[in-house]
Amino acid sequence: MTASIETVRELSARHSNWGRWGPEDEKGTLNLVTPEMVVAAAGLVKQGKVISMALPYDDAGPQNGGLGRFNPIHLMIRDGADVVAGTSIRDFYGGVDKHFRGTDDIIIMPLQSGTQWDAFGHVVFEGKIYNGYGAEWVSSKGALKGDVANAADGMVGRGVLLDVARALGVDWLEPGHAVGRDDLERAEAHAGITVGSGDFVFVRTGAMAAARAAGAWGDYAGGEAPGLGLDSVDWVGERDVAAIAADTWGLEVRPNETPDVAQPLHIVFIVHMGLWLGEIFDLDPLAEDCAADGAYEFLFCGPPLPFTRAVGSPLNPMAIK
Amino acid sequence: MTASIETVRELSARHSNWGRWGPEDEKGTLNLVTPEMVVAAAGLVKQGKVISMALPYDDAGPQNGGLGRFNPIHLMIRDGADVVAGTSIRDFYGGVDKHFRGTDDIIIMPLQSGTQWDAFGHVVFEGKIYNGYGAEWVSSKGALKGDVANAADGMVGRGVLLDVARALGVDWLEPGHAVGRDDLERAEAHAGITVGSGDFVFVRTGAMAAARAAGAWGDYAGGEAPGLGLDSVDWVGERDVAAIAADTWGLEVRPNETPDVAQPLHIVFIVHMGLWLGEIFDLDPLAEDCAADGAYEFLFCGPPLPFTRAVGSPLNPMAIK
Amino acid sequence: MTASIETVRELSARHSNWGRWGPEDEKGTLNLVTPEMVVAAAGLVKQGKVISMALPYDDAGPQNGGLGRFNPIHLMIRDGADVVAGTSIRDFYGGVDKHFRGTDDIIIMPLQSGTQWDAFGHVVFEGKIYNGYGAEWVSSKGALKGDVANAADGMVGRGVLLDVARALGVDWLEPGHAVGRDDLERAEAHAGITVGSGDFVFVRTGAMAAARAAGAWGDYAGGEAPGLGLDSVDWVGERDVAAIAADTWGLEVRPNETPDVAQPLHIVFIVHMGLWLGEIFDLDPLAEDCAADGAYEFLFCGPPLPFTRAVGSPLNPMAIK
Amino acid sequence: MTASIETVRELSARHSNWGRWGPEDEKGTLNLVTPEMVVAAAGLVKQGKVISMALPYDDAGPQNGGLGRFNPIHLMIRDGADVVAGTSIRDFYGGVDKHFRGTDDIIIMPLQSGTQWDAFGHVVFEGKIYNGYGAEWVSSKGALKGDVANAADGMVGRGVLLDVARALGVDWLEPGHAVGRDDLERAEAHAGITVGSGDFVFVRTGAMAAARAAGAWGDYAGGEAPGLGLDSVDWVGERDVAAIAADTWGLEVRPNETPDVAQPLHIVFIVHMGLWLGEIFDLDPLAEDCAADGAYEFLFCGPPLPFTRAVGSPLNPMAIK
Repeated sequence: MTASIETVRELSARHSNWGRWGPEDEKGTLNLVTPEMVVAAAGLVKQGKVISMALPYDDAGPQNGGLGRFNPIHLMIRDGADVVAGTSIRDFYGGVDKHFRGTDDIIIMPLQSGTQWDAFGHVVFEGKIYNGYGAEWVSSKGALKGDVANAADGMVGRGVLLDVARALGVDWLEPGHAVGRDDLERAEAHAGITVGSGDFVFVRTGAMAAARAAGAWGDYAGGEAPGLGLDSVDWVGERDVAAIAADTWGLEVRPNETPDVAQPLHIVFIVHMGLWLGEIFDLDPLAEDCAADGAYEFLFCGPPLPFTRAVGSPLNPMAIK
Repeated sequence: MTASIETVRELSARHSNWGRWGPEDEKGTLNLVTPEMVVAAAGLVKQGKVISMALPYDDAGPQNGGLGRFNPIHLMIRDGADVVAGTSIRDFYGGVDKHFRGTDDIIIMPLQSGTQWDAFGHVVFEGKIYNGYGAEWVSSKGALKGDVANAADGMVGRGVLLDVARALGVDWLEPGHAVGRDDLERAEAHAGITVGSGDFVFVRTGAMAAARAAGAWGDYAGGEAPGLGLDSVDWVGERDVAAIAADTWGLEVRPNETPDVAQPLHIVFIVHMGLWLGEIFDLDPLAEDCAADGAYEFLFCGPPLPFTRAVGSPLNPMAIK
Repeated sequence: MTASIETVRELSARHSNWGRWGPEDEKGTLNLVTPEMVVAAAGLVKQGKVISMALPYDDAGPQNGGLGRFNPIHLMIRDGADVVAGTSIRDFYGGVDKHFRGTDDIIIMPLQSGTQWDAFGHVVFEGKIYNGYGAEWVSSKGALKGDVANAADGMVGRGVLLDVARALGVDWLEPGHAVGRDDLERAEAHAGITVGSGDFVFVRTGAMAAARAAGAWGDYAGGEAPGLGLDSVDWVGERDVAAIAADTWGLEVRPNETPDVAQPLHIVFIVHMGLWLGEIFDLDPLAEDCAADGAYEFLFCGPPLPFTRAVGSPLNPMAIK
Repeated sequence: MTASIETVRELSARHSNWGRWGPEDEKGTLNLVTPEMVVAAAGLVKQGKVISMALPYDDAGPQNGGLGRFNPIHLMIRDGADVVAGTSIRDFYGGVDKHFRGTDDIIIMPLQSGTQWDAFGHVVFEGKIYNGYGAEWVSSKGALKGDVANAADGMVGRGVLLDVARALGVDWLEPGHAVGRDDLERAEAHAGITVGSGDFVFVRTGAMAAARAAGAWGDYAGGEAPGLGLDSVDWVGERDVAAIAADTWGLEVRPNETPDVAQPLHIVFIVHMGLWLGEIFDLDPLAEDCAADGAYEFLFCGPPLPFTRAVGSPLNPMAIK
């Protein structure tokens, strides 16, 4: 039977966390992370390795204009060429030379153009965002409810890499591959770890490796992709994880399994489960390292930047082993 | 005797790290952080507390237009009001309703407008940036040498809060107060910690608390301020720290102690020492917590975002205790 | 009797042009300008003088952050300092020197931050914009109805300067001065001109001259100001003008005469009359010239830029005499 | 013999206007337009037609990212959907409903991304811009010399359409077609007009019509194109025109005729002649009209916006017949 909006509604109802942490909660699954978990996660740091999962933010990024998203535009306000040309003092320091010459720069970027967290205000379903707040809380002013700053001091805990591609013995999953419970459990077995409550889970499909192998992003952003499928939802719900991130632009499999519903897992996970989703995480260096040392769990530290009223945020997520 | 450019040159020569980590080094004092230090720092996590040192990024920030810096401009590409108005599907999904309604946003911001790391490309002295690279490496294209992305996987280690204001028994240091060796050592004694090689040091002057008490930023950004003075340089150099950040806009005391040199410590620290400087860190919540539990050391995780060729970066620095 | 929303509703009803030019009209009062009027206006060009009414667009502009409006941010993408520093070819032309070195720049600006036309989509009253289109036509996507591009080929005709300040014998009208029928007719008499159908009328209050005399914009943008008052509405409606612009930030008198209604004339003029309003026009050079030669009428050419779906546009309005 | 840098130097020397209008001149060929010419041009207005030559500024524009140029990014600050959703008053008017609901928007755009004038500061040759100013006058601060604001009150005069494509009996010239003296004189003959001193000349190659016929911009921006060739230079110099604009992205033929020099005519025209060049002018509606009524001359009004220190400007150029 083809999945449909009814499937989405059913999964949403089954895994809804609305009210679970109070009627005014805006932290969602981050509530699952206890101080004890943070202490335990710190205990995973045994080698002193620090590995970033961020893709560089620059004009070589994956965006191609879809959804109004473009790669970051970086411009200098003043620079070293001004120093060489002698224009730095003349134009920026009022003609008074006090030996110091600074440079400054500016960024213009969609907050979801690269490695990113989705905030709860990012998705509206049937007029509501997570925990039942009405869509009107996310106006042109931004997300007065469900903004990304709610996670500003909470994205620390045990990280687990589920290298699904490696676990299945391939370089990358093909577009359209729906990662389900079996795939996830094979990746757990491969990692020798059981995912549990409050974990930060990183699902590697190999999609970024595929783009690297191709030497071009192609339609990485917005196109067909491997990713979590409907069959993953119960597993995710049962495990009660704090967050899930992947190396694809949108976390879930594309084309969507529900012909009548776009991004069904965003609806279940973000709107109903209050689950933090991460996208465009570069998991390749971490995967190489985990394959080498066999340690698939680590201390994760990856808070968003506290952009007030924002519905997403770039970040530099760190795996510390 | 009044300090001058000669003082700056002398301190720069005394503490220069040019060549210390090779002729092509762009990581500077981050080289001091060893894997052992990271493991040891993780051992400081005993309570599971996670405290952010980031000021929110929004239009209520401290910038007032000086140096071309302004507070972040946040705009919605599409939002929940569009959902309510029924324009979301019409205008952003081609008129095809597949139940999903997303929102997206954009940020326009100087990379040094809020809580930030300065990259080495941020300061040029006598035509050079850190490690002797010429100013021409920081062109309108950005910092081809000395960009902030060099620190993308390195800002993890032992953090130490030096609450100078509290150590001196005041709510905040007055503008013009030059924090020197004595103040720093009093703060160390107050914290019960000796700062050492590879540490991440956070110097609290109380300047942000003062702005909060006043209910307005006033000339916090660019104005007179307490901060590190020339007398702190030898201490910083001897301790061989990985990075220093403060709760002021520019880390160092203002007015500068050198009438003929602007921001002399930027010249010594960034250009010659290759030291990472952090500014506009909100140290007040951390200071409250440290005063309460007496633990002034913690695991620090605060990488910049990997903005390619950028001379600064916003971040969300975390103290994990 | 104090004016109120009832006054606004009455004036709106009396002067409504909804339907006057068809149910789908988006040009409003520009429909009044006939080809004959354009030819006649060209006949006013007798001296070959060309006078701009635009304020420079730069960081010295009048905006102070209110309403999310800021002065234009201008940044270079690459510049002449790069040429001097030798970085132009290296960083922007792939290292291949073909003698040419270009520079480029970028602007970030609210479309209503300087000299500007208001589009009909700029004001909503009781859920409607001009000609009865619902507010939902102006979504996050922009103004699908009532955008400024509707005037892209229509802002040419007879211009008339009504120098109210000079006509009243003052350097500038005081904030709170409501320009009414009497003032306008005195200015007509002073100009020796009778305003008629299809004219482009420029009302000089002297507010910009006052800011110049003060040497600072102060609260020019968003503050109290002289400007058109409720008593001007019948005159404007009777004369059936094509557009009205003034040298203030908002055209109408501030504080508003209606305690319960903000910007009542915007509601009457833009929403109901379909009248094009111009703001922050620099009328001082033109006024000097008119005072000198006594010619207060001229060929006006001042189209907006055709920003698709925009609710306002900067422009360089020209008086040609 | 293949043209080369020597050709460019020779043409530059032959047609240099450096010093012609004084050593500090920044207006270049606009000096050629006399008041008498403006009066005479106004006399060409006989039908009252007003025709825009601007391409809409929006995300459907021709840019593809080359040279750091992108299509305008237009975002709403607040909009009508907020009115419908009831968030307008709550979020932008402090919760106080005074019946007025405004909308506002913002633009982010390279100043040379659409219909545009090039300023003299846009091109540097051998370290100099027009009239001998050094490249250091165009720093990260912008063009302190040679900015586009120099033309703010001068772009009015006789306009002449040279429809080269129509004159040659084709829908459009092919990429690589170098328009020379013969083509221009055939277009003059076709128009029945002789171009003279102080004229504003619009050269139609049909390149935009070709893109329209193809239904896509393809590599219109930055790619191969028809355009003025080296053989046009003497004609342009002899006629002493005020400005030349075309319907291509770069005015001159591509590939360039000089293998060792990029954009040779920009070097001759902008740097040495001080000639104002316009690009991406949409000449198709005007051409249709001229073909219909046979009137190829008109009053031209097309000033740039006075962006201080900018090296280019969008505009809405008007032909008034």
